[in-house]
Amino acid sequence: MATHKVTLLPSNQSLEVPTGTLISEAIQKVGLEFAQPCGGQGRCGRCAVIIDGAGARRRSTIRLSSEDIEAGYALACQAVIEGDVTITIPEQEEVVRRLVTDKSAKKVEIPFPYDYQTMQTLQSFQVTLDEPTIDDNRDDVSRLETQLSSMGYKSIDIPLRLLRTMGGVLRESHWSPWVVLDKDRHDDQVARLIDLKSEPIKLHGLAIDIGTTTVTVYLVNLENGEVVSSAAEYNNQISHGEDVISRIIFAKKGDGLDRLGDRVRETIDTLLERIYRRTGIASEDIHKVTVSGNTTMMHLFLKIPPESIRLTPYIPIVNHPLQYLASELELNVHPLANVDCLPGVASYVGADISAGVLACGMTETEELTLFIDVGTNGETVLGTQDWMVTCACSAGPAFEGAGVVNGMRATLGAIEEVWVHSQTYEPSYRVIGDVAPKGICGSGLISLLAELFVTGVIDRGGNVKLDLDTPRTRQGDHGPEYVVAWGDETESGKDIVITKVDVENLMRAKAAIYAGFSVLANSVGLELSDVQRVLVGGAFGQYINVEKAVQIGLLPDLPWDRFSFLGNTSVLGAYMALLSKTAREQVEEIAQKMTYIELSADNAFFNAFTAALFLPHTEINRFPSVAEVWDK
Amino acid sequence: MATHKVTLLPSNQSLEVPTGTLISEAIQKVGLEFAQPCGGQGRCGRCAVIIDGAGARRRSTIRLSSEDIEAGYALACQAVIEGDVTITIPEQEEVVRRLVTDKSAKKVEIPFPYDYQTMQTLQSFQVTLDEPTIDDNRDDVSRLETQLSSMGYKSIDIPLRLLRTMGGVLRESHWSPWVVLDKDRHDDQVARLIDLKSEPIKLHGLAIDIGTTTVTVYLVNLENGEVVSSAAEYNNQISHGEDVISRIIFAKKGDGLDRLGDRVRETIDTLLERIYRRTGIASEDIHKVTVSGNTTMMHLFLKIPPESIRLTPYIPIVNHPLQYLASELELNVHPLANVDCLPGVASYVGADISAGVLACGMTETEELTLFIDVGTNGETVLGTQDWMVTCACSAGPAFEGAGVVNGMRATLGAIEEVWVHSQTYEPSYRVIGDVAPKGICGSGLISLLAELFVTGVIDRGGNVKLDLDTPRTRQGDHGPEYVVAWGDETESGKDIVITKVDVENLMRAKAAIYAGFSVLANSVGLELSDVQRVLVGGAFGQYINVEKAVQIGLLPDLPWDRFSFLGNTSVLGAYMALLSKTAREQVEEIAQKMTYIELSADNAFFNAFTAALFLPHTEINRFPSVAEVWDK
Repeated sequence: MATHKVTLLPSNQSLEVPTGTLISEAIQKVGLEFAQPCGGQGRCGRCAVIIDGAGARRRSTIRLSSEDIEAGYALACQAVIEGDVTITIPEQEEVVRRLVTDKSAKKVEIPFPYDYQTMQTLQSFQVTLDEPTIDDNRDDVSRLETQLSSMGYKSIDIPLRLLRTMGGVLRESHWSPWVVLDKDRHDDQVARLIDLKSEPIKLHGLAIDIGTTTVTVYLVNLENGEVVSSAAEYNNQISHGEDVISRIIFAKKGDGLDRLGDRVRETIDTLLERIYRRTGIASEDIHKVTVSGNTTMMHLFLKIPPESIRLTPYIPIVNHPLQYLASELELNVHPLANVDCLPGVASYVGADISAGVLACGMTETEELTLFIDVGTNGETVLGTQDWMVTCACSAGPAFEGAGVVNGMRATLGAIEEVWVHSQTYEPSYRVIGDVAPKGICGSGLISLLAELFVTGVIDRGGNVKLDLDTPRTRQGDHGPEYVVAWGDETESGKDIVITKVDVENLMRAKAAIYAGFSVLANSVGLELSDVQRVLVGGAFGQYINVEKAVQIGLLPDLPWDRFSFLGNTSVLGAYMALLSKTAREQVEEIAQKMTYIELSADNAFFNAFTAALFLPHTEINRFPSVAEVWDK
Repeated sequence: MATHKVTLLPSNQSLEVPTGTLISEAIQKVGLEFAQPCGGQGRCGRCAVIIDGAGARRRSTIRLSSEDIEAGYALACQAVIEGDVTITIPEQEEVVRRLVTDKSAKKVEIPFPYDYQTMQTLQSFQVTLDEPTIDDNRDDVSRLETQLSSMGYKSIDIPLRLLRTMGGVLRESHWSPWVVLDKDRHDDQVARLIDLKSEPIKLHGLAIDIGTTTVTVYLVNLENGEVVSSAAEYNNQISHGEDVISRIIFAKKGDGLDRLGDRVRETIDTLLERIYRRTGIASEDIHKVTVSGNTTMMHLFLKIPPESIRLTPYIPIVNHPLQYLASELELNVHPLANVDCLPGVASYVGADISAGVLACGMTETEELTLFIDVGTNGETVLGTQDWMVTCACSAGPAFEGAGVVNGMRATLGAIEEVWVHSQTYEPSYRVIGDVAPKGICGSGLISLLAELFVTGVIDRGGNVKLDLDTPRTRQGDHGPEYVVAWGDETESGKDIVITKVDVENLMRAKAAIYAGFSVLANSVGLELSDVQRVLVGGAFGQYINVEKAVQIGLLPDLPWDRFSFLGNTSVLGAYMALLSKTAREQVEEIAQKMTYIELSADNAFFNAFTAALFLPHTEINRFPSVAEVWDK
């Protein structure tokens, strides 16, 4: 058998190994320390190494992003040596950091080649006006209008606020002020004056996604299109109810609507303060805001009573809000900034989905595509560039880490992936930031649920088995539970557990989402197995492990290469609409085009939901790949 | 000589008198009490009687309105008997009341045949929307838009405030709400939703004239076009300066601009409260506001710094303000009402003049017309329907009763007309409401100045003669003065006087106005004697006695029948623009058409002003009719 020379860096040790040797085996052969939390199953990603040369072949790349692969990363437990190769073993610390950085603060790419001049409605430039004389006694406004008119702006709306400062600015700038104009979306020749200063003005904008559970903000440089900074935080409204229905009920009581409106403003304010502090950009520099969010969130943001959304026949007050002024909406940005709330489709398929469909690119393909926003509301779109059907199922906030005893957002200290040993039932886990764990985030919960299921710690009905030979399962204050981390490992000093109730919440969430898929496919006479692409958006979509999501029956059992994880498609769509007039128009078209299917009026949904309340599903034949593992 | 039978009612006495007998002589012959304050000169109007039959001829009708004449009134001292006639002597009280009522609370006539449907931008009607069902799940806004679109409104702007109440209103009204729409001035198919209710909505509007000295408000029923109520009050800004220049200076100091803006709002608020209380109409019922006023007043109302108005080259920030929301301008009307500030021409010829030109009708005549707004700023327009030149001279507020020791507005207790006996120098006067006098209003001041001049109490330079055989002239605290009313006749118990300083103020005011006329006429190569019509507007224009105004040199010495007194043409123009789209467009055209002549840059003005600082003028030959009286 042929052997190959393997050089290991940074220790610079060499050895000869036969073809087919795993890199992990080679490393262990020379006696180097090397952690494999998942026991060499290719599931934890912690044994990543960097390979130089073509001498190693990756058998599985599930845990690696395309950027990882391009950078030369391979999982030592999944890559075989087939030629001479140099392997760099990173500091273990380094690997964790890199992957974490990759995931939680990945730079947002500009979604398309961006040309400020042609794509952006907002324009800023200096104008030179005629100086007044005793013979040319036109008023200031006429001077400005004449100049802008000669540049093609036939009609300019000048807000009172700027009329009040105009005299001073024109004279300070010696009749050569800088202006910011926001062109009408429909007519380039009509514009609103947003700012007028005696010095150059930088253009910035915000893309905001108001999720039921999480609010996300992108601060965008509108001249080069780049995301300068972003931030996300739980929606402060959560204290008044975890899902949209409880918020709507809260809004009806006394000053509930005002309070909910104020809560989301507080959340946005917190995020903006954080971003402003981080970047040195001032609130006055933000001249445009695009907002996405589900229909209830949009109503609450605009302080429009959402009552009718939850009552038959489920009618929103407005699906296509107009543009309003930042000052009117009390946002901490330039008071004259246009706030553009993106259009939605129906009470339970909102702007977040219109924006998400734009961002996921399904309007540009003939392939049958399933787009899922795995957020609190579990909205799903099935279709192609030619047609789309959509529905929403109330999944609840479990996958966003809320409504689960030790749930948390995917931030520092969150357990984001878990492996359970199939004999000892001992878990190992990865924590964001490699610190002592504080709780479990959405991807960690999916991972945990799947592991508990495939190792038999819980049964197909979600019951925790208390008769296993392990101290990890026990009777807790809230019924049976499994201990993921003992108190001496955690930040708080208390055990991190998942309870029977948590498991039930997660199962209801995943069953609702899967039932939505089934109903949509049935509505157009198709099977889920016909789906050619599955695009997963949502607050934590990009962290989901397909294998595990399929194992619990959250995602349909399709070949893994059909899945793409897109992250927060709602804020991404808002970002695109913020940048480009054309993208903004597309969101409008998408909202018009989608056919909404009301599940609450649909018995088929209830049946599909009930059938999905098992792991992975009552009909195990829908999940052949899971059946195979589970039968073992 | 022929005699005629005169019957006197209500006493039913008869007598025969020869042709040519004055009615006053006939009355005195039978021994009836009959007051003639002016001594039978036809100047006080207090000897009015009602004649029945053609047997009496009026020699002079100066003190009578056309309505008076139509009602049969004649002045007993000016009407001669030439046939049989029945004469009713009204209660003296009654005469005074009638004339006063006539003048100070005359009903404002609708200025043109008004058709709400075709002329008004504001429309109110009930719409019936499709009720939502589970199969028709369109949002509320779409339902409303669809219905309005079918009625020809292709684009509707829905303010956030109404979005917030829409859900409740549509459901309460069982999907048949009442709407108020304000059509775009330029495009009937574009409109803004102003109100949405579950009950019928009455449409009302306000026409407001913000004068430097006086603020006037008309409350208008926009369905039938009638003025429901009106009110006027001193502009509270007066405490911060009596003319526009001192206001502009005040505005520059600290928070002066805000304070001036607040003062005029307080004034308007006071007037509105008075009107609302009087009519029972609520602030929410006012859906549209049209504002007129000079350029400085408009800047202060909008809280735009007026600084540049008083500095060479005298440039306003804005001559054509856009429409702003009542809420933005903090007016106590419906918060979504459009506030339409009418356009002006230049720093010293504002919207009040554009509106005044519309109201006076000079755009519809080929006759050479002089339009004068005898307010604080003394704006004048000379021209025909084809061309117009305009200028402004700072007359000061003297004619509005401000800046004069005992000056006051033309309200209850104001001396509005004065006669001075040519031998005794004893005055008699008419008081508005026939109560004890409080002070002297503008028309009273003109009257007084003229009488003092023609009786020789003051000389042509305005000096009070202290050597006359009367206690009425004396040395007062502020120099020489003339006592119009002794303390035992007045409301306050103090003497009402006119001082040398008051006389000088009045002379400067009249000189500035007359100088403006001269310069305008010269600028187009015409003489004042070419003027075919003199239209006098302004706060107190309608109360001016031509004879007296000519005597002091305020008005040019032209035949009396060329003069018309129109009252407050600024508020009248605003009222017309409030009612009719076409009228509103005409104001715009007028503002565009007028050629402004800047007097401050003009030596000719200073010379003309200095020449006019005499009574009636340095060149007495410009005032032949005065020369004739005065020479006597």
